[in-house]
Amino acid sequence: MAHASDTTGLHIDLNSDLGESFGNWTMGNDNAVLDLVSSANIACGFHAGDPKVLLDTVKAAHERDVRIGAHIGYRDLPGFGRRFIDYNAEELLAETIYQLGAIKAAAAVVGAKVSYVKPHGALYNRMATDSYQAEAVIGGILAVDPQLKLMAMSGTPVVGEARAAGLEVIEETFADRAYTDEGRLVPRKQPGAVHDDVDTVVNQALAIATGQPFQSVNGNPVQVAGQSICVHGDNAKALEIVEAIIAALKKEGITIC
Amino acid sequence: MAHASDTTGLHIDLNSDLGESFGNWTMGNDNAVLDLVSSANIACGFHAGDPKVLLDTVKAAHERDVRIGAHIGYRDLPGFGRRFIDYNAEELLAETIYQLGAIKAAAAVVGAKVSYVKPHGALYNRMATDSYQAEAVIGGILAVDPQLKLMAMSGTPVVGEARAAGLEVIEETFADRAYTDEGRLVPRKQPGAVHDDVDTVVNQALAIATGQPFQSVNGNPVQVAGQSICVHGDNAKALEIVEAIIAALKKEGITIC
Amino acid sequence: MAHASDTTGLHIDLNSDLGESFGNWTMGNDNAVLDLVSSANIACGFHAGDPKVLLDTVKAAHERDVRIGAHIGYRDLPGFGRRFIDYNAEELLAETIYQLGAIKAAAAVVGAKVSYVKPHGALYNRMATDSYQAEAVIGGILAVDPQLKLMAMSGTPVVGEARAAGLEVIEETFADRAYTDEGRLVPRKQPGAVHDDVDTVVNQALAIATGQPFQSVNGNPVQVAGQSICVHGDNAKALEIVEAIIAALKKEGITIC
Amino acid sequence: MAHASDTTGLHIDLNSDLGESFGNWTMGNDNAVLDLVSSANIACGFHAGDPKVLLDTVKAAHERDVRIGAHIGYRDLPGFGRRFIDYNAEELLAETIYQLGAIKAAAAVVGAKVSYVKPHGALYNRMATDSYQAEAVIGGILAVDPQLKLMAMSGTPVVGEARAAGLEVIEETFADRAYTDEGRLVPRKQPGAVHDDVDTVVNQALAIATGQPFQSVNGNPVQVAGQSICVHGDNAKALEIVEAIIAALKKEGITIC
Repeated sequence: MAHASDTTGLHIDLNSDLGESFGNWTMGNDNAVLDLVSSANIACGFHAGDPKVLLDTVKAAHERDVRIGAHIGYRDLPGFGRRFIDYNAEELLAETIYQLGAIKAAAAVVGAKVSYVKPHGALYNRMATDSYQAEAVIGGILAVDPQLKLMAMSGTPVVGEARAAGLEVIEETFADRAYTDEGRLVPRKQPGAVHDDVDTVVNQALAIATGQPFQSVNGNPVQVAGQSICVHGDNAKALEIVEAIIAALKKEGITIC
Repeated sequence: MAHASDTTGLHIDLNSDLGESFGNWTMGNDNAVLDLVSSANIACGFHAGDPKVLLDTVKAAHERDVRIGAHIGYRDLPGFGRRFIDYNAEELLAETIYQLGAIKAAAAVVGAKVSYVKPHGALYNRMATDSYQAEAVIGGILAVDPQLKLMAMSGTPVVGEARAAGLEVIEETFADRAYTDEGRLVPRKQPGAVHDDVDTVVNQALAIATGQPFQSVNGNPVQVAGQSICVHGDNAKALEIVEAIIAALKKEGITIC
Repeated sequence: MAHASDTTGLHIDLNSDLGESFGNWTMGNDNAVLDLVSSANIACGFHAGDPKVLLDTVKAAHERDVRIGAHIGYRDLPGFGRRFIDYNAEELLAETIYQLGAIKAAAAVVGAKVSYVKPHGALYNRMATDSYQAEAVIGGILAVDPQLKLMAMSGTPVVGEARAAGLEVIEETFADRAYTDEGRLVPRKQPGAVHDDVDTVVNQALAIATGQPFQSVNGNPVQVAGQSICVHGDNAKALEIVEAIIAALKKEGITIC
Repeated sequence: MAHASDTTGLHIDLNSDLGESFGNWTMGNDNAVLDLVSSANIACGFHAGDPKVLLDTVKAAHERDVRIGAHIGYRDLPGFGRRFIDYNAEELLAETIYQLGAIKAAAAVVGAKVSYVKPHGALYNRMATDSYQAEAVIGGILAVDPQLKLMAMSGTPVVGEARAAGLEVIEETFADRAYTDEGRLVPRKQPGAVHDDVDTVVNQALAIATGQPFQSVNGNPVQVAGQSICVHGDNAKALEIVEAIIAALKKEGITIC
């Protein structure tokens, strides 16, 4: 799915995590997902991916004109970057620079560019509300390339912090997750946190893309700002949901880009 | 030790391996060595070093106007990159790109540039005579930045291969190692491979820097082409030898740069 | 598939590599394979697997009365233990002890015992003909528990070396691989190295189990000594082949144990 | 320093972290420290150490009749196990079993036995007050060998939890750290947390060994229960302090064991 440079009409970005295979271990359906999304969050080798997977994935994304994002994470392959690690700020800053350098080189080799940075897993969640880790990552991005955008969780403090620091922010939303009345994600451990019903997911995606309110976990109307919706391609069912979202968006004349 | 841009008179480069600390483990006397050498081979995190050590070391090198080299290696922290690994060419190419990207970003962040690439340990030795691994590394360098020079073992096939591929080569020599009549290093396992005597080391350094023959392991005159001499700073005695080499070079009016 | 203690009639062991998932990355169909084989080569965390996968897999094997083997390998998760690494003998010995200790503890915790050791991938291949690495692994096994058997490639020098050192050896054979006239595996890179035809695989398994000759890669009769046949469960087709082998063996009254 | 089996008179254990070298990186003065202490907390390869270092260190400890403790830690070599990681309980349990199995095998190979388990760094601190991680580690120890003792921070909840679960606990104290009035360690970040003065350290060691109160950070008398005192051997000065402690203990007729 190409990302259009024309963004006059209604439009929304669909992003997905890619390049998560590691050595002999394959993960996901990268080629199928790349045919659907407009932005690829590509693992940089610290929580998933490896140098060859990284190179192959930036190439595959570039061939489809899919935007390339640096999916940076904690240095924790055994935990897939999903466990909070109490990093020292200097180390997190340095690891941000290191990962960005690696993916920028891989992208340049295939004639592409990195457009944005999306922190992964526990780092993504922590940064949303912890200025300490947020500052380290933001500092690393600014040091490498202040033109890189930050993809961050819509409605969280990090959005303002990154903007104040001079970064352009892509507010990320989720069509398959319930939100609180305040526009924050319902934690996964709580009942009703994840939408099982495809129609609910599709309708929430439409509401986000059109700037309309949808129903919070408490049944109240809630509106979230979002320039991108996160989608998944782990299995056949996940891919069907993405296709349903895309069909609905297109029917409403909304460009995916 | 600054590297001069004036290279009219007699001159020679002194290089050393740096940035080899890892997390809580410290290695070497980086600051002392950086005050002496003109080129720093800085570990890129695969066989030694880590993102913070890398960033600190490129900064320390840049502050002293010491040339920055990417010391790339096999992905083998437990073996310190000193064990041959039978890599797949595509993986070695991708790991070369990855490591170069990481150090280039670190250098850029501190306002510096990477000048050359020196493969480390088992990779260095293997590349010298194995076209298979040599091509992968050379391909990676060309893909990232054809202006990067390759530091390679003087007198080995890789020197010609890299030049044929379009890379500028820095031929590296050793003042503390015995050479065969053919100008190749005597393997470490053979008797007499390493010079114990400081005078022998200093005299061999002078011979290399002035393009004169010195005595081979068999007692015959041998001459080796070399634009750089490798020195070590592991301990106090090693540092004294470097200082003795520098004093002798200066006495002869040879610039270290 | 239970392994019988009664081994009077014709019988053969079927072994397969298991427990190769790592963190968030799943590999293989362990439960399906464990229902079929009599011996499980369980990864010990160095080339594949991790502590939790190891514990879960020894438990699953023990519940089905499947023999537990320590699938030890090079410390090389990125290369899945498939790349030759030029180990120092002392390190290989120590890593053998370490891995055996880890799996023995996991087995003991679930009330099971480790029966044998099967080196993995590049280590398996190297040991077959390289006494240097073979001695390190054999020394590690003897140090930990001389009752552990070694599963090794039928017809290779390591079989005799291990027996001379006092270890009981399980000679391993392959039903889906072509053999030379001398009873050695045809290297994978050569044409005809792997049998595509299920009937050929099944017939070779029968020949091995009954001690009969089968056709070598050159069309000559070859006979290989084997107490175990290696089978694979990577995908649905692989599982079907295992089921076909088992059906044929049972039809001939051969016990799988 | 041998540990005596006769424990009738006044006696105290001195423990130190050992076996923390990793591959080519050396850490500490293990041989010097082993000549002084009665208990060695030996790294099991997850936060520090490697299989060869582990084997060498259990051998060196056993030769000096020093008690062997399993120094288990988070799987975090880059962070040296000093950063909190938000582990899943099942993974922490499995990693405990894995590390204990590895060190038990190494100890058995040299004819020694593991006596106790001391969690390292962030795991040690977390377990002290976090039942979630404490239960996982205690469960792992019980599963492997309920005769293993747990060395835990004196005065913290984990002491009672481990005893309730059936483990014998060695309460660990610190002679060089200030305590609160409640007998808890003053956090390192607070002023006065670490004693600079050797006499203070020696006197606190004596007070702990004889069950007498000493001065808290607030100047009040505080008494801590402790069967072991942690000492360090990182450098020459640290070793001198250990020697001063030992001299003072011996002068008072207190056995180190």
